[in-house]
Amino acid sequence: MKELGYYNGTIGELNEMTVPMNDRACWFGDGVYEAAMVRKFHYFALDEHIDRLFRSAAKLEITVPMGKDALKTLLNDLAKKMDTGNLMAYWQVTRGSGPRGHAFPEGPANLWVTLRPKEINPGSEPISLITDEDIRFLHCDIKTLNLIPSVMAAEKAKQAGCYECVLYRTGGRVTECSHSNVHIIRDGVFRTAPTDNLILAGIARAHLIAACKRLGIPVDETPFTVDELMAADEIITSSSTAPCSRACQVNGQAAGMKREDLFKALHKAVFDEYYSATE
Amino acid sequence: MKELGYYNGTIGELNEMTVPMNDRACWFGDGVYEAAMVRKFHYFALDEHIDRLFRSAAKLEITVPMGKDALKTLLNDLAKKMDTGNLMAYWQVTRGSGPRGHAFPEGPANLWVTLRPKEINPGSEPISLITDEDIRFLHCDIKTLNLIPSVMAAEKAKQAGCYECVLYRTGGRVTECSHSNVHIIRDGVFRTAPTDNLILAGIARAHLIAACKRLGIPVDETPFTVDELMAADEIITSSSTAPCSRACQVNGQAAGMKREDLFKALHKAVFDEYYSATE
Repeated sequence: MKELGYYNGTIGELNEMTVPMNDRACWFGDGVYEAAMVRKFHYFALDEHIDRLFRSAAKLEITVPMGKDALKTLLNDLAKKMDTGNLMAYWQVTRGSGPRGHAFPEGPANLWVTLRPKEINPGSEPISLITDEDIRFLHCDIKTLNLIPSVMAAEKAKQAGCYECVLYRTGGRVTECSHSNVHIIRDGVFRTAPTDNLILAGIARAHLIAACKRLGIPVDETPFTVDELMAADEIITSSSTAPCSRACQVNGQAAGMKREDLFKALHKAVFDEYYSATE
Repeated sequence: MKELGYYNGTIGELNEMTVPMNDRACWFGDGVYEAAMVRKFHYFALDEHIDRLFRSAAKLEITVPMGKDALKTLLNDLAKKMDTGNLMAYWQVTRGSGPRGHAFPEGPANLWVTLRPKEINPGSEPISLITDEDIRFLHCDIKTLNLIPSVMAAEKAKQAGCYECVLYRTGGRVTECSHSNVHIIRDGVFRTAPTDNLILAGIARAHLIAACKRLGIPVDETPFTVDELMAADEIITSSSTAPCSRACQVNGQAAGMKREDLFKALHKAVFDEYYSATE
């Protein structure tokens, strides 16, 4: 298959797939999701993604309609149907179906999967960023389908010719980007926002932190501000599809790019792990 | 028809209707909506609902795929297909379809409509409320499909055996409920939160304020706190489906119910308008 769509057991080409209008995704964005990279038909960090899906679902009292092992088997089986093994796998669980009403429905949750050809973003070119106020809800630790603020921020970045939009709360605290975490290096220390309710605990973020530890780079998980971002020696973004990218510009001003040695070491560590785990 | 679903020109029984998996409602909750009551095949306040839909869409840079008059004609034509004329009409516009990606897609927006039999809630019995922290995003003035916090709050109210959940921001400022506005009467004054970015400018709220003005009840649009709610003479909720209800209990404590004269006068004014406009 070229682009696969799966919905509660039905499989088809993604652009021909339909779902019930009464799925609660349609009325409330009432669900949680994951996205992971696949290379040579091997998922990267699949257990971590599945664990996080179950954590997100539990926080919203959604019961994932199959166990972790069954979900893992399903995702692997679906990948084998694809024409290429280099993919982005995306899956979501929505809080069932029924006539629109805010309170929870009675029936089971729905499982959706999509698989589309995609190569990981190698982070070989420095990126440009913009900043904007973080207006999202107060549980960004849950990976939900309520993504309008991220959509608006990502479009704003695109219109500015930039890769990502760095979000900050009132007072200037940087949280994360529209679909990435963001980190800085200053005085040789890797600084990243703590995983409280305001950011998603990124899996690429966790792998970057692990790489820092292997390399002997100190890690400081205390919040930083936009001013500290602008003055940083390096600015690094991470996501599952772009696990280690380096920024050279923020809001049109030159930024970062002062510790190529540390960025290169981190970048190599992250991609070495990715390629060896998916060989 | 019993329960009608409409999607970009296709019409069917709602529980049999499907939509493309690639509609952005499915991945991002990327759309805006309206819900209005219909009685004897007459929509109540339809122009106001259509105007608000266009305002919500404009704030998110979504282009509604038809003009106001055409949408009004469509909604009226669809109602005529129904077995009964007492309905809730719901319609939403989503930001087009396409492979999942945060930035805006190229194609046109999608129009969805549902019509289901429903009688207006007469507000004849006092209701019970709970309170919970308002964790929603910072543009609750836009009527979007990003409704998970409202879903969670509505379910919490249901579990507590209550009709609604009153939301308050850090510091205690009452904003609104999970799917209603909320107002108080104190010392003969009708007090309601101002229509800033933290609440939806309810159409039932606007009709309540107009009723106050007709009745000579002073209106004060300054924020009030949970403490002020608990101490109020009357607590009134409003929404299109339940335009004037009175609370007798908040978090298990007796509350309101001290100015039956004013509540009854307001209630009569609101329902007189509703019934005469839909005769």
